[in-house]
Amino acid sequence: MRLSRSFLPTLRETPKEAEIVSHRLMLRAGLVRQQSAGIYSWLPLGQKVLANIQRIVREEQNRAGAIEILMPTLQSADLWRESGRYEDYGKEMLRIEDRQEREMLYGPTNEEMVTDIFRSYVRSYKELPMNLYHIQWKFRDELRPRFGVMRGREFLMKDAYSFDIDEASARRAYNRMFVAYLRTFDRLGVKAIPMRADSGPIGGDATHEFIVLAATGESAVFLDKRALDTPVPGDDIDFYGDLTPIVSAWTEKYAATEEMHDKAAFEALPEENRVEARGIEVGQVFYFGTKYSEPMGAKVTGPDGVDHPVHMGSYGIGVSRLVAAIIEASHDESGIIWPESVAPYKVGLINLKVGDAATDLACDGLYERLTNAGIEVLYDDVEGRAGAKFATMDLIGLPWQLIVGPKGLASGEVEIKRRATGERESVSLDTAVAKLLGSS
Amino acid sequence: MRLSRSFLPTLRETPKEAEIVSHRLMLRAGLVRQQSAGIYSWLPLGQKVLANIQRIVREEQNRAGAIEILMPTLQSADLWRESGRYEDYGKEMLRIEDRQEREMLYGPTNEEMVTDIFRSYVRSYKELPMNLYHIQWKFRDELRPRFGVMRGREFLMKDAYSFDIDEASARRAYNRMFVAYLRTFDRLGVKAIPMRADSGPIGGDATHEFIVLAATGESAVFLDKRALDTPVPGDDIDFYGDLTPIVSAWTEKYAATEEMHDKAAFEALPEENRVEARGIEVGQVFYFGTKYSEPMGAKVTGPDGVDHPVHMGSYGIGVSRLVAAIIEASHDESGIIWPESVAPYKVGLINLKVGDAATDLACDGLYERLTNAGIEVLYDDVEGRAGAKFATMDLIGLPWQLIVGPKGLASGEVEIKRRATGERESVSLDTAVAKLLGSS
Repeated sequence: MRLSRSFLPTLRETPKEAEIVSHRLMLRAGLVRQQSAGIYSWLPLGQKVLANIQRIVREEQNRAGAIEILMPTLQSADLWRESGRYEDYGKEMLRIEDRQEREMLYGPTNEEMVTDIFRSYVRSYKELPMNLYHIQWKFRDELRPRFGVMRGREFLMKDAYSFDIDEASARRAYNRMFVAYLRTFDRLGVKAIPMRADSGPIGGDATHEFIVLAATGESAVFLDKRALDTPVPGDDIDFYGDLTPIVSAWTEKYAATEEMHDKAAFEALPEENRVEARGIEVGQVFYFGTKYSEPMGAKVTGPDGVDHPVHMGSYGIGVSRLVAAIIEASHDESGIIWPESVAPYKVGLINLKVGDAATDLACDGLYERLTNAGIEVLYDDVEGRAGAKFATMDLIGLPWQLIVGPKGLASGEVEIKRRATGERESVSLDTAVAKLLGSS
Repeated sequence: MRLSRSFLPTLRETPKEAEIVSHRLMLRAGLVRQQSAGIYSWLPLGQKVLANIQRIVREEQNRAGAIEILMPTLQSADLWRESGRYEDYGKEMLRIEDRQEREMLYGPTNEEMVTDIFRSYVRSYKELPMNLYHIQWKFRDELRPRFGVMRGREFLMKDAYSFDIDEASARRAYNRMFVAYLRTFDRLGVKAIPMRADSGPIGGDATHEFIVLAATGESAVFLDKRALDTPVPGDDIDFYGDLTPIVSAWTEKYAATEEMHDKAAFEALPEENRVEARGIEVGQVFYFGTKYSEPMGAKVTGPDGVDHPVHMGSYGIGVSRLVAAIIEASHDESGIIWPESVAPYKVGLINLKVGDAATDLACDGLYERLTNAGIEVLYDDVEGRAGAKFATMDLIGLPWQLIVGPKGLASGEVEIKRRATGERESVSLDTAVAKLLGSS
């Protein structure tokens, strides 16, 4: 993408309303713009990051056997009366009346609706296990929306729902999502640790939160150092094999947020293994048995010929929140440092002297070669001072910068810079292309 | 995807509430499920078709130089007061009050919001032309939602908005979208004709509707036969070149919906060129000048150093509606006939004797070979009668069926069927694979 044909409104000044670093950087780098309290437009760079995160989340859900559907944003209040949550949910639920005076709501989550879909079609245990997920906008009318998309009102969530004939099978479904989450966050380039958690309004007796470690995280976390070195399964993982050893390797090591912290258990660890850190919740998995299937009549005929309410779990990932969480975990004083898997572009190509024939020619050629090889390049082809160009590229945090100016070109060289380390190297044009094609 | 691990709830009976063929087929083929009046969940097959349509729409928007963003579903009423449309819009606009008693609405379209984004960042004519688009759910509180997703309340729309310094430049932006639409609908496998249209509540003086021709279409259309043979530009089209000849080739031939029909002009055509048909609106393009930029203060400094309100256009495609429109244009009495570009899977692989070792082995092998070659296959690996399997495959309308049974295998053959023509052929396994890899 040529910068001259793009729309990348970066800000020089730090917006006053932004209290945390990800919010400041998202506004400054032109990823989002606030439209109302806790409601954001995603500008081109932000939209691309959001799409990259969705793609990885989707690939890992599919790999784990979950099936994608898409439920609407608006729901009928009657459905929520069936589970008893319509009254329980309080003011965070945005209640709406349509022109026919029907009571509706903007879905904050989808347990009721997916249970309704399930009960409408599925009759036999033979169709199980089943896991349905969608990636859709949700709304929670937070009293004090803040911290940008970290605690927004309209937010994008991936939510999956598993249906099984009994608890043993439901635990296997839980484990599949647990492992899918390990893989998902790993691919997104963040260190996320599953931690003991409280089940809150979803209900249920088994639940883990996945917490991204970040020095600027919202809450204190306590963990066994060895959790940091526990391996994440590769993409040859068999989701229909026994996942218990993998899950146990994580859950048997102490890891808890402040709310669930068990001081005695933590202090029983050898001192050198006790890690106190900060983190941001980016996902949560729940097993809640028949909490919804029982009142809503979601039953299947078992092998015994008898109807059983299905055992369910639900599994959320905060997709829009992840954009902020990744930034909290990966930035420096100059700006964002995108992990390559989610970066809006892999390479920022900087033309230091727009209008200079040789420099333009070299840049155009590099842009074409990289683009034709399938590499996403943001090409700064706009006149401007070198200092401002460097500052903008550092701010928006693309993994690689390719810097081209008349001086270097005179000796056949361009500069290549790795954003994460600041490392710079002068190389020939061919070497630069080869390096960018080869790096991952 | 193995059918045994999928979720494809087809219905035997025709649902009573469905009045038009696309609605009936979408319910029977398990593409959607109604959740409330005019509000649908997209089940796995429907979700995949919707995703395929979005991908093609997005590719052609990008090719034409439009830039993707993502605006939220909920908007502030104040923004709509600036343009004067908050009062004008009437009961189709879903008005919402949040917990702080702020007036919000579920966006039926985004002229105001995108104008707000534009005026917040863009100052100079040098940043123009600019075209921002998004693909997002919208809501229109129809008095009588019906015909399934054809006239739903919550619907998915692609809407683009162009910003230009003057009318001449805005007309070029209009032409770019006009040509992008020709290409988009062509790639989606439907015949869509741009027709003279009424500008309605968007306002403006130049507008065309794009109408998909379908015998079961909602409205009568009148056109010059030669419009049917006007060529659609290939993917080597230069969107920054002069598109006037292409646009004129379409617009100079008579084509109008009933509302805009000019009987005298139509009857001036030679009789053999007069075509009366039926059609479905799937897109509309508008040029409306400074209707929003003037009251909302979206101005840029021109080359003359003076501020000018920008000239705008907007360009919609009904993404969810297209799923129904494509079905209206492409079905027979047995079910849907998906154009290959939007089909949820390219091939339906039917195992006629699940449990028979040789048949299972052959099917598993074909499934693996095709899948590894990047072809999307729905593999019916579930026990059932041949007749029911054939009926379901015909109903869901995948372009190709690959039918494998013990009888054919005994002589080394499988059957390959093209859904659109019903043509069947017995061929070797290798020939079948080669044929499916080669076909487009």
